[in-house]
Amino acid sequence: MSDLQTKVMELARRRGIFWSSYEIYGGVAGLYDIGPIGIRIKNRIVELWRKYFIKDNAEFVVEIETPLVTPYKVLEASGHVENFTDPIVECTKCHNVYRADHLIEEIAKVNVEGLKPSELDNIIREKGIKCPKCGGDLGEVRLFNLLFETNIGPYTGNKGFIRPETAQGMFTSFKRVYESFRQRLPLGIAQVGRVGRNEISPRQGLIRMREFTIMEVEFFFDPESPGEVPLDKVGDLTINILRGEEKVKGEKPVQYKLREAVDEKVILNPWMAYWMGVATKFVSTLGIPQSSTYFEEKLPHERAHYSKQTFDQIVVIGEDKVEISGHAYRSDYDLSRHMKFSGQDLTVFKKYDTPKIVKKKTVIINRDELNKEGKEFVKTFMQFINGKSPEEVEEMINKGVKVSDKEISKYVKVLEREEKVTGTHFIPHVVEPSFGVERCLYLAVLNAYKEKDGRIVLSLPKQLAPYDLAVFPLLERDELIKKAKEIYNHLQEKYDVIYDDVGSIGKRYARVDEIGVPYSITVDPTTLSDNTVTIRDRDTWNQIRVEIERLDEVIEKLFKGEEFNKLGRVVDNNE
Amino acid sequence: MSDLQTKVMELARRRGIFWSSYEIYGGVAGLYDIGPIGIRIKNRIVELWRKYFIKDNAEFVVEIETPLVTPYKVLEASGHVENFTDPIVECTKCHNVYRADHLIEEIAKVNVEGLKPSELDNIIREKGIKCPKCGGDLGEVRLFNLLFETNIGPYTGNKGFIRPETAQGMFTSFKRVYESFRQRLPLGIAQVGRVGRNEISPRQGLIRMREFTIMEVEFFFDPESPGEVPLDKVGDLTINILRGEEKVKGEKPVQYKLREAVDEKVILNPWMAYWMGVATKFVSTLGIPQSSTYFEEKLPHERAHYSKQTFDQIVVIGEDKVEISGHAYRSDYDLSRHMKFSGQDLTVFKKYDTPKIVKKKTVIINRDELNKEGKEFVKTFMQFINGKSPEEVEEMINKGVKVSDKEISKYVKVLEREEKVTGTHFIPHVVEPSFGVERCLYLAVLNAYKEKDGRIVLSLPKQLAPYDLAVFPLLERDELIKKAKEIYNHLQEKYDVIYDDVGSIGKRYARVDEIGVPYSITVDPTTLSDNTVTIRDRDTWNQIRVEIERLDEVIEKLFKGEEFNKLGRVVDNNE
Repeated sequence: MSDLQTKVMELARRRGIFWSSYEIYGGVAGLYDIGPIGIRIKNRIVELWRKYFIKDNAEFVVEIETPLVTPYKVLEASGHVENFTDPIVECTKCHNVYRADHLIEEIAKVNVEGLKPSELDNIIREKGIKCPKCGGDLGEVRLFNLLFETNIGPYTGNKGFIRPETAQGMFTSFKRVYESFRQRLPLGIAQVGRVGRNEISPRQGLIRMREFTIMEVEFFFDPESPGEVPLDKVGDLTINILRGEEKVKGEKPVQYKLREAVDEKVILNPWMAYWMGVATKFVSTLGIPQSSTYFEEKLPHERAHYSKQTFDQIVVIGEDKVEISGHAYRSDYDLSRHMKFSGQDLTVFKKYDTPKIVKKKTVIINRDELNKEGKEFVKTFMQFINGKSPEEVEEMINKGVKVSDKEISKYVKVLEREEKVTGTHFIPHVVEPSFGVERCLYLAVLNAYKEKDGRIVLSLPKQLAPYDLAVFPLLERDELIKKAKEIYNHLQEKYDVIYDDVGSIGKRYARVDEIGVPYSITVDPTTLSDNTVTIRDRDTWNQIRVEIERLDEVIEKLFKGEEFNKLGRVVDNNE
Repeated sequence: MSDLQTKVMELARRRGIFWSSYEIYGGVAGLYDIGPIGIRIKNRIVELWRKYFIKDNAEFVVEIETPLVTPYKVLEASGHVENFTDPIVECTKCHNVYRADHLIEEIAKVNVEGLKPSELDNIIREKGIKCPKCGGDLGEVRLFNLLFETNIGPYTGNKGFIRPETAQGMFTSFKRVYESFRQRLPLGIAQVGRVGRNEISPRQGLIRMREFTIMEVEFFFDPESPGEVPLDKVGDLTINILRGEEKVKGEKPVQYKLREAVDEKVILNPWMAYWMGVATKFVSTLGIPQSSTYFEEKLPHERAHYSKQTFDQIVVIGEDKVEISGHAYRSDYDLSRHMKFSGQDLTVFKKYDTPKIVKKKTVIINRDELNKEGKEFVKTFMQFINGKSPEEVEEMINKGVKVSDKEISKYVKVLEREEKVTGTHFIPHVVEPSFGVERCLYLAVLNAYKEKDGRIVLSLPKQLAPYDLAVFPLLERDELIKKAKEIYNHLQEKYDVIYDDVGSIGKRYARVDEIGVPYSITVDPTTLSDNTVTIRDRDTWNQIRVEIERLDEVIEKLFKGEEFNKLGRVVDNNE
């Protein structure tokens, strides 16, 4: 863990942002509680995501919610039962279990992403890697499935899982949502919900969790006419991309205008590019500068089993490099698989603008001629002709094929007819932008962590702060407390406000700085004589004095981004 | 299912409110998807609950989020491993499994709530109950645990469960939250999250689900000095209560002022009463009239294993009677159990206002005298005296007890000293108000379902509606569409708005009535000449004509509850 990470973990635990779950029982790796301050930040992150991904795209994105408990068949169809695995290796002596690829990477310092168990086995033998705990020999590398398994209902053998992604809920309900959306494409189905991944030995805090919250969109479109991609909204964004081929060569990310990346087919699908643009805008609202992020293209062997192209959106903060979102072109993989496994038709009907006239051959049997030959011949003839396509029959007629020595052309002919076809059925394609909420929370806090004069200041963007405002009486005097509570109650109607009257004012400022409250309002003895309060800025510690009757207006302007020092009389620090 | 329920289920499926999950695989009993319209209503219900239970009580309630995946030990401590069971019985012939109590109640029409398996067995034999499916003999009634079981990590035998309530997350993290709340009581810890209950054969739609969302508060307080209960906020509410003793006699609920119910000890704990008042206010915001609800006291054998007193809040809609919330006085049960199972101190320290002087007896050994008797005697004497309390020793001295024929009074005396004690440790007590979100959603929709002139109108309270407003161009003409989209885009900034230009205006009105959109704004040819639009009321179908420049103001007034017909020129239906 980096120095910064350690500091952030300490702050998070102490101030109720997040901490290891079930601490009194020694904790469980990969499970975290989100505390009273953390949940306020988290809820705001989710609301921001909803704004960018759902509300701003309300013409074609809807939200749903589906269960975590998932029947076996669904995740068999999705390929997770077969492919959602990590390689593990067990010590033959102390029986400790390791994630094989991580163990090799740590000890032998080689990149083994995507290698097969047998290949990992070979490296372990070659490099003579032993159990780091007891020095014992390691067993054979085998695949461990990361699905949390359970049983649904009272009958044993009715296996189910905790979902590892929300996506399958959107695929299995696609037809129903599509109907309720009046059968229009494109259609984005969004979901915010918990998922479980039974990681081998998670050790990276909020980065690799056994249970976390995903915010994702499965975006369905017609691959042949994908509709109007609103690239005008994001096309001018500059994003950094590390292409797969460049990555292999050890190159660095390259700047692209998003529109260029589409035109040059760096991003294969324009809808995927659109959502990468939206993701870029969303991540910058977390306070993370665009220059600290890039999209890394996954190499074929690094991609999930369902993906045609995948980009990870990477955030770099100090020494830390974290994947904040994934962008996968899932094509028609999932719907096709569910069609196959459920036997249901999940295609979509596309009506042609004008019906197409299609020429179609039909086999016509001359019953009159045929019946003249007697029952036995009819039977033989029909057996011969049944199941043959018009084209096959036509060819046989042309070749003069005979049945019981009689040329078939006497009894059968093939006619070409015109048919009106009004449309066609197809399976929509899907691109998926997917965020982990806790990673967003963690990165926002990591990025906001600052120290000033030896004290911690959490410089969160205002729209992420756990509270908008703090209200303090300067001293523990009844008149000041009464006035401060009046102001608190008034502001609570419109803002999230914290009230505090315990301890010195300096300590109270320090306390709200640590959790990122942008502005503190203090009622002091002057308030009682001239009806003014001070407002203090979290980041600069500057203060202005403002009439209480102007407070609403000034706060509104502050949240709109107007300059702090211009909104009131600047207080001299020696005052 | 009642007629009304059937109609609501049909509407819910067709319009994307909710439907059975995994339909393409035949569905899974007890699992439901919340659709695009349903999730909007659900999210608003959650926000309203947060307002009433958290924000309005921000001085002492905080929210957290903890995992669904729960280690074995935690639910062993909570008593769920032992007690979270339902009786089941299996047919010995066709091996169908039934919930034993429900089966008996259905067939024999007797109330068997709280009976033991052996008692249920007896009834089955006495009444000669057979398998309703094949007529076969039923086996022995046994208890089936409703926890979804799983395994955490790669080691087998590391059992875990999906939590059946969010409460245990609050208990296991209580100490941490209490610290971050600066060690103050009372302290409410709230959580909104999914839970799983592996019901035997759920068949009641959104009422009995295998996975659902709970909103609950664990409210911790000092039982000896519970703090100021803000009964002034809810004490004047009139609520209906069916007491346990009255219920046994078959009586009906009785009206109480909430404050009376506390004074008369009908509700044992004033904090529980407070939250029942808050629950009453919250339920009325769902549109459900207070006269349709009552609190039913659970009888001792009906209560959960942890509860001292429990009330269910019941909603009656037509023939349907549904528990919308539960209010349990969990006392110190959970924290005590977790102290015992984790070995951690979960008590809270209460400082006395002034330190108390406590008299304390101490055993004083006269080493000089003792050593004179030689090593052997010292050893025998010390073995005799060790582990005895000062009071026991004092009694022995008074009785002239001897060790090896020597009176102990020679070697030991008991002195009384005064000690200053600054405070005491105690385990906080807990009351818990707990809501199921999906039940709230279902009851709100059931209650709002109306028919008018043969068409469905969902008369949801405005604050629950999936969209605030709809915007329509009357005709599919470019100028009208352009104007309507302008208005839509403007209103989207402040409201949730739906835009629709497909089909006749009558059909579009009908479509938004069905999902409960309170107001529709229509752009018609008149708009182009005089810059006015019509606003239509969902429930009365009345229309008023309003200048576009007044639209913001009129809409704001409508949502504040001002009279519709007074806010614009009423449109004659023949116009």
